[in-house]
Amino acid sequence: MKLLEERIRRDGIIRPGNVLKVDSFINHQMDITLFEEMAKEWKRRFAGKPVNKILTIEASGIGIAAIAAREFQVPVVFAKKAQSINLDADNYVTKIRSFTHGREYEVIVSRKFLGPWDHVLIIDDFLANGCALMGLLEITQMAGAAVEGIGIAVEKGFQEGGRLIRQKGIQLESLAIVESMDAETGEICFGSREGSDE
Amino acid sequence: MKLLEERIRRDGIIRPGNVLKVDSFINHQMDITLFEEMAKEWKRRFAGKPVNKILTIEASGIGIAAIAAREFQVPVVFAKKAQSINLDADNYVTKIRSFTHGREYEVIVSRKFLGPWDHVLIIDDFLANGCALMGLLEITQMAGAAVEGIGIAVEKGFQEGGRLIRQKGIQLESLAIVESMDAETGEICFGSREGSDE
Repeated sequence: MKLLEERIRRDGIIRPGNVLKVDSFINHQMDITLFEEMAKEWKRRFAGKPVNKILTIEASGIGIAAIAAREFQVPVVFAKKAQSINLDADNYVTKIRSFTHGREYEVIVSRKFLGPWDHVLIIDDFLANGCALMGLLEITQMAGAAVEGIGIAVEKGFQEGGRLIRQKGIQLESLAIVESMDAETGEICFGSREGSDE
Repeated sequence: MKLLEERIRRDGIIRPGNVLKVDSFINHQMDITLFEEMAKEWKRRFAGKPVNKILTIEASGIGIAAIAAREFQVPVVFAKKAQSINLDADNYVTKIRSFTHGREYEVIVSRKFLGPWDHVLIIDDFLANGCALMGLLEITQMAGAAVEGIGIAVEKGFQEGGRLIRQKGIQLESLAIVESMDAETGEICFGSREGSDE
């Protein structure tokens, strides 16, 4: 999606170690007008899919998911992160490892809000190694819900998450795929995988 | 706001100890259509205020803030919660105490995204003792930003947060104010403080 790529080029900050900061418009300050354009793009790419719920994970996925949900006219469920074990008959619980924060935590969704009746579109801001998404997919599986697709704002194409998801045959629509970036020159290259070309 | 009060009566769950669960439509599953009506109501109540930014706190405030921001046509900044001390020249940091989770944590906003040029509307899902809001107010003060008002979905009118905020002369618009509730009978009473009648 050209609009998002241009915005990343303009306002994204590249740090050594392949770190891309988009906190001025995506995950600390949120540009809602941009989110609306992203939501329209996902609506176009997932046209005809019987989505009845959007699933995301706290915290930075929630804003994008809310605006996307408005476009799809469906509710959002956001998975909660907990550090304490919260095994509970009322919840689906799985563990995921955060590389950013260097620790494991539980991801929790209430059984009341996800079940075999659901056709879920998963939305998140970032896809790198895919740990968070794998956790959400595990939860949809526990719930017996169908995954109609996954919409991501920024995918790091040089990390394995995208490949692992596409291998499962799930329609993954990342609106910007960063193939490479250079902290010294500030150069950033984008790729495209729209239309399941893999 | 009648629509929200009726929804709380229908789908809210009262638990002993004055606990009100609204997780089926506000803070775990999110009813975006309801959020749009709430956003319109805040737009009406804060008409004429020169709001250029919405400030909220992760995680459950983010969805409501995003939909409200769409109505106001402004960006959102969400304050981040951290458990580790993160004193940083680049951030405003304050501590708040969570009664729900029984611990203190830091609330952080980047200096890049809040400053003396900002006219802020603070949005959050719940107001009880007001600790989270006091933290956000402290951060706006550090930033030299003007607070144009505070919009809350559900205020517990029998706790002190609302009174403390209104005493500061800030326009506080809670769309549903719970005056009392009874876990045994399921009865819930709402009050009104619209139009700064205090």
